[in-house]
Order: sequence, then structure tokens, then C-alpha cells
Amino acid sequence: MKRVGFVQNNPVFGEVERNVNRALELASTVEADLLVFPELFNTGYLFLSKEEAYKLSETLEGPTVRKLQRFSEETSTAVVAGFAERVGEKVYNSAVVIDVDGSVKGVYRKTHLFYEEKLFFEPGDTGFKVFEVAGMRVGVMICYDWRFPESARTLALKGAQVIAHPSNLVLPHAPTADLARAVENRVFLILADRSGADVRGERRLDFEGKSMVVDPDMNVLVKAPREGEHAMVAEIDPKVADVKNINPLNHILKDRRPHLYEGLC
Amino acid sequence: MKRVGFVQNNPVFGEVERNVNRALELASTVEADLLVFPELFNTGYLFLSKEEAYKLSETLEGPTVRKLQRFSEETSTAVVAGFAERVGEKVYNSAVVIDVDGSVKGVYRKTHLFYEEKLFFEPGDTGFKVFEVAGMRVGVMICYDWRFPESARTLALKGAQVIAHPSNLVLPHAPTADLARAVENRVFLILADRSGADVRGERRLDFEGKSMVVDPDMNVLVKAPREGEHAMVAEIDPKVADVKNINPLNHILKDRRPHLYEGLC
Repeated sequence: MKRVGFVQNNPVFGEVERNVNRALELASTVEADLLVFPELFNTGYLFLSKEEAYKLSETLEGPTVRKLQRFSEETSTAVVAGFAERVGEKVYNSAVVIDVDGSVKGVYRKTHLFYEEKLFFEPGDTGFKVFEVAGMRVGVMICYDWRFPESARTLALKGAQVIAHPSNLVLPHAPTADLARAVENRVFLILADRSGADVRGERRLDFEGKSMVVDPDMNVLVKAPREGEHAMVAEIDPKVADVKNINPLNHILKDRRPHLYEGLC
Repeated sequence: MKRVGFVQNNPVFGEVERNVNRALELASTVEADLLVFPELFNTGYLFLSKEEAYKLSETLEGPTVRKLQRFSEETSTAVVAGFAERVGEKVYNSAVVIDVDGSVKGVYRKTHLFYEEKLFFEPGDTGFKVFEVAGMRVGVMICYDWRFPESARTLALKGAQVIAHPSNLVLPHAPTADLARAVENRVFLILADRSGADVRGERRLDFEGKSMVVDPDMNVLVKAPREGEHAMVAEIDPKVADVKNINPLNHILKDRRPHLYEGLC
């Protein structure tokens, strides 16, 4: 059995050090094998310019990832966490994946950028990846990737048992759609959303919270409310997600008939 | 504006004439431009042998389709209805599509067969099709097709404004997944499920009911309860489903990045 969960934080825009410390403080209140932190958990979301996104971005060797690594190593917790990743002059909306020994296993760069993210970030170039961490196969998609069933499907076809879904949700639909993602692929899904609002001058964005862990039968194992900061964990058997036969005659991945999915690829 | 809806019936297994008459009686209680009837609405679901499925099957020229055509013509209602379709020696789990003038526009044959259907029916060979009826572009998927997001996605990519979903649901997940199907594709969706149970000797299957009409923003416009027979209609503007831009920078179909959906096709 594995303990998997999320940190639902409410970052203050731009106050990276404060936000990382606070998120790790929340993380320290639970014991987990895998914890998922929200999209851009360290910076906040509402960038006003490409320059600002660049200024708040960090490399994989930067202080945010380093602190997460230290947390992972000290607590034997694998971590998936969203941050603005700097690669040369480019910035990606990324999630780092860190194993229980503090080693960086890799990074996923958001495939489907939402709204003004298109002005500040490069479209992700990694594709959908599955990482072996904490003895589980963990796939990653970020926020708006939810709207494309192809995201979770690709991860399931690559063998993900758990989908980590760091998010900053501004629309109400994803928590429902994520129930479908779990059952249509028979995977566990961890939605790690932020709460609160970003207010920048005249502009304001409110976030949905409602982080949760869902099982492959669409049962919600734990769920946070809309408001507030929370760290929550559920106990799961990741091998349940390897069972794709829902009866002796149906295997939900082998039942696919790709030659009839015209226009999909 | 168009009036679209469903008939949720509770057929008696094998009593085709009674079942068709009763379903049309229900249909006659509403005024609609498009009505969707459940999967196998005329025969019931729990076949015990291939021979039985063959015996209860009908061609597109058979009495069930003829009665539906007469209803369509008399009431100017387009119809999508599930039935066991006989083609030579083969039987498909199909849905006929009839326009408001009573003409048969075509047939969809279920792509993904559920459980023992694999023993009684041929896998569908039509692919996912969009039909122009009642001034709307209507795509069809049948029951277990819901579990494959590829089904609704293919229909949306082919231009469906409305997805008709004739079903005989024995699992509780589809009504939630269908909310995702609607919003991830920005289409209207009509789930037409049956209620009650099929009891054949020692065997029994209970059905979920809960037929509904959903809009592209995931709002449930009308919904039947689990039990009982119902015909319900909602007023919709099908052109709302043509708007795939959810903001000035995101178009949910053009935002797709198929080269990153490895293994999907």
C-alpha cells in the first residue's frame, strides 16, 4: 500500500521563498509516499508579462527544486510540483518529479497552454511522461491538459498507475472531468489545485481548490474544500490500476479500436 | 432553437411490439425536433444466446424501424434509436437515425461491445458518424462507447453539435463521464438510458436510468430519475456547440497536439 496525496496551498504572488516554505510546512503535516503540489505553486499564477515570468522562473538546479529535494530526502516522499522552468531564454510551465531519495527523475512541460500562458510560456516539448517513483508509475499532466482526454489516455497507454495533476483551476469543470479521466483509464488521479486568488492591480483570478485523490472506480478517497490550505493523503494499492479487465471479456485498453478513431491523430 | 430529448423506457424482454408501442406512447407526450431512444429499446438487453439475438433482430426495413419512421413523419421528429440490426447472417448492436420526414438517414453500429455482447453481436463496422437531421449535426455512440473518450472526440472532430447516446447502463459511471464528454468537446449530449431490470431465469440485470440532456458547459438541462419511464425535452441552440473558442487564445480542438499523443492511434 502507498500513501499518496496533495498540498493545496494559497501562494502570495511573487513571494517564492515564503510560498515554498509554507507549502513544505503544509507537506510536513502528513506522512506520504507521494505528494503532488499545484501548478506554479512557488510563484503564483497571474503573470503580467513575459519578462515577469522569466524573472520568476528557475532552472532544475534552482532553489525551489533544491528545497523540494531536501524535503523528499528527509521525509522519503516523492514529489511532483509545478514551477516556471527556465531553459536558456525560454520558460516552460513545468512540473518537476523527485524520487524519495531526493533525486530529480525528470520534468514534464505543459502540453496545452491556457489563455495568456501562451504569451508567457513555451508550449511543452516533453510529451506525456511516466516516471517510476516511490515504487509507482506516475504520469503527469498540468491543469488545462485535463480538457484533452488524450493527455490522460496517453499516460495510461504508457503504463501510468497514478496521474499527478498539478493545477491552478479557474473553471469549475476539471474536478468532474478528472473523475472521468480516472475511470476511463482505470488509474488513480491526484488533483493538486491551489486556493485563494491572485490580485494584480485591476486584475483578479479566483481558484477552485477542491484538490482530491480519486481511485480507478471513480471513488473520491479524499477531497479538500474550495477554500483554505490543506495537505491530505489517501492509502492506495497502485496495482489496482494495472487491472484493465473490467470483466472476463472487456479490457478497457485492448478494447480500443484506433482504426475507427478517424481524425484523432 | 431546437427541442431535443430522450425516451427512457422499461421494455419487457422479447416483447418487441409491446415495447415499440409503449416507447412511442411515451414519445407522443412531448414535442421535439430530436428524440433519442435507448440501446436495444425494442427487444430488451439480456440475450441468452446468439440464436436469440438473431431471432429478435430486424433489418432496416423491419417493423420497428417502419414504426419509428411513421412516428417521425407524423410528428416531424428526428429519431435515434437502438435495435439489434440483422445484416444477412450477422447481427449488430445498432442505432438507426431517422430524419423529420421519416426517411432513414443511416445507421451506426456499436464500436465497443460490452461483455457478452461480444458473444451475440458483430463489432461495429461503420465507425463514428455524424448525421444531418432536424437541422442539426448529430453524432451517435452507443452505451459502453462512453468509456472510450475517443468515441465522442471522433464525433466532435467530425463536426457533431449533438451526441446521441442510446444506452442500457449497468454501471454507475457513465452519467458522470458523459458530463466530461460534453465539456471536453463542447457538444450537447443526450443520454437515453432504460430503467428497470431484465430477468431471465436465474439471471438479472438492473439498469441505471438517469437519462439526461447536457449542454457544452456541462450544465444538465433535464434529467430523469433512476426509476420509471420518462420522455423529457430541453430547448437548445445547437450553434452554441460550434463555438470551440473558450477565450480569445484557446480553441479546444485546434489546441490539440496530436504528435504528442503517442500510442493513441
